[in-house]
Amino acid sequence: MRSDFPAVPTVLVLDAAPSEPAPRLGSLTGRARILHASGVADLRDQLPSADVLLVWDIFSDAVREAWPAADGDARPRWVHTASAGVDRLMFPELIDSDTQLTNARGVFDQPIAEYVAALVLAMGKDLPRTLALQAERTWRHRESQRIAGTRACVVGSGPIGQAIVKQLKALGITTALVGRRPRTGIHGPADLDRLLARADWVVCAAPLTDDTRGMFDARRFGVMQPAARFINVGRGALVVESDLVAALEKRWIAGAALDVFEHEPLAPDSPLWTTPGLIVSPHMSGDTVGWRDELGRQFLELYGRWESGRTLMNVVDKKRGYVPGN
Amino acid sequence: MRSDFPAVPTVLVLDAAPSEPAPRLGSLTGRARILHASGVADLRDQLPSADVLLVWDIFSDAVREAWPAADGDARPRWVHTASAGVDRLMFPELIDSDTQLTNARGVFDQPIAEYVAALVLAMGKDLPRTLALQAERTWRHRESQRIAGTRACVVGSGPIGQAIVKQLKALGITTALVGRRPRTGIHGPADLDRLLARADWVVCAAPLTDDTRGMFDARRFGVMQPAARFINVGRGALVVESDLVAALEKRWIAGAALDVFEHEPLAPDSPLWTTPGLIVSPHMSGDTVGWRDELGRQFLELYGRWESGRTLMNVVDKKRGYVPGN
Repeated sequence: MRSDFPAVPTVLVLDAAPSEPAPRLGSLTGRARILHASGVADLRDQLPSADVLLVWDIFSDAVREAWPAADGDARPRWVHTASAGVDRLMFPELIDSDTQLTNARGVFDQPIAEYVAALVLAMGKDLPRTLALQAERTWRHRESQRIAGTRACVVGSGPIGQAIVKQLKALGITTALVGRRPRTGIHGPADLDRLLARADWVVCAAPLTDDTRGMFDARRFGVMQPAARFINVGRGALVVESDLVAALEKRWIAGAALDVFEHEPLAPDSPLWTTPGLIVSPHMSGDTVGWRDELGRQFLELYGRWESGRTLMNVVDKKRGYVPGN
Repeated sequence: MRSDFPAVPTVLVLDAAPSEPAPRLGSLTGRARILHASGVADLRDQLPSADVLLVWDIFSDAVREAWPAADGDARPRWVHTASAGVDRLMFPELIDSDTQLTNARGVFDQPIAEYVAALVLAMGKDLPRTLALQAERTWRHRESQRIAGTRACVVGSGPIGQAIVKQLKALGITTALVGRRPRTGIHGPADLDRLLARADWVVCAAPLTDDTRGMFDARRFGVMQPAARFINVGRGALVVESDLVAALEKRWIAGAALDVFEHEPLAPDSPLWTTPGLIVSPHMSGDTVGWRDELGRQFLELYGRWESGRTLMNVVDKKRGYVPGN
């Protein structure tokens, strides 16, 4: 304990915007002292007094910027981020520290899988064009695509990728899952290009690491079929965005949907908004009604384990940059 | 036979627009004389010489108008319509005749089920709004709906309704199927209002008969939850369209999607195009790439049975207005 009173751990919450209020931690009354920080300066001031840091503002770089202010013993022993991706926290001072890092693994799996299914079906059934024709009061019958029997390649073999595979299989789609290393039911990177060349749907749900950054580039879009559609629900920087724009403009692939971007929110003057055949959505794939409550419940569950000295779940392998699977 | 030469049955095809060419019937060479008719006058002239009528122009009332021209023995012995719905052929002179009527049962089941899944997911994930915001280059994060665990009521227990149920179940949706009479796994009409009141998704895939015409009216929309969405892939006249417009404007229900309309194509000045929360599509739910080939293959299979005197499949019960199930 860093203060004599109260003799409970201090939980510091890195708050997000008022529109995204922090979770209700009332059940920690008597079990933790709850502090809140907004922005880098505030975080820097309070970080040395925190035993636990809850990163609620998951789009902020404040942790990276404030971390050096707390040295050695004055660093939180545990950092939890209310996100699946941990790439913003993968800076050397945290990686090399003794601090445990956990993430929100599990909360987003089914919602993101449903979102991917929505995109696949919308693109296969030509729904964006239907809505555009409706706006013009134009009746134009078209044939659309049969979904059952098509092929998907899902890149990223964590729980989100696995939930996507399960959901797409339920639609009768033949799926292949690609992970960092081959194992039962999961292809390794060596199979990727061959699988991309056969896929009607390429879905990216990989973590952002040094190995995966920019993996979807001109070469990989060139490998895909002209009828293929590409969907990214992982991290924006997995895709070389200018290469995707070029691939769509040159009709190397038939369509794409991005829910994540290298820079978020996407700038109003980004060419992505108007790239033909591209659906742009505002990083919402995992965020179903009640998701913040779910994230709060998950933190409380982890806190219960942490305070009693039990092993935490969802512990990030900081060298790899994600929570390792079984 | 009505002509001495050739001594094979005459198949008359009621052609559709040139954009929808009749199926290739080349494999009937030597087994049938193929004639083509366009429009009522042409059909009236040729009908008396036809043993079999293939209704390819499924949106035409020409059969109803031309039928009286052929009396008694001069009527086709078999009429096949390349559609699931048979309501346009349910006129007294055909119902009361000895002519067998068959339909395209089976061809549209899986495509329509996928189309319904596409609409459910698009509405649940707020995709139309995402596309509208994209057109404005506006980044606006929203929470969307978790699909698994929601409830659907599917009205129409034929193969299309059953395929819809199967597809929605694969998305984790709890489903109830309502048919003309209660039987194992299928609710009867007496349960309908109770099921509508609990449903997040109401899907109409019923045939159009005297019993079902206008069944979705102000009273039924009033029974539904404010969060409910209504989808019609059956026949337009199952819905009182002005009542649906009012229900959406008054927010009795949260949204709707119509793929079929009382009058098709939908007139440019129809209020449906701009009704808030309504997705309008041009009767395309069952029409996936290759569907016309599939319809052609189905007719050829039926013809093989017919010419050898075997029992036909897909025979419509003309008193009921649909192909009875098991």
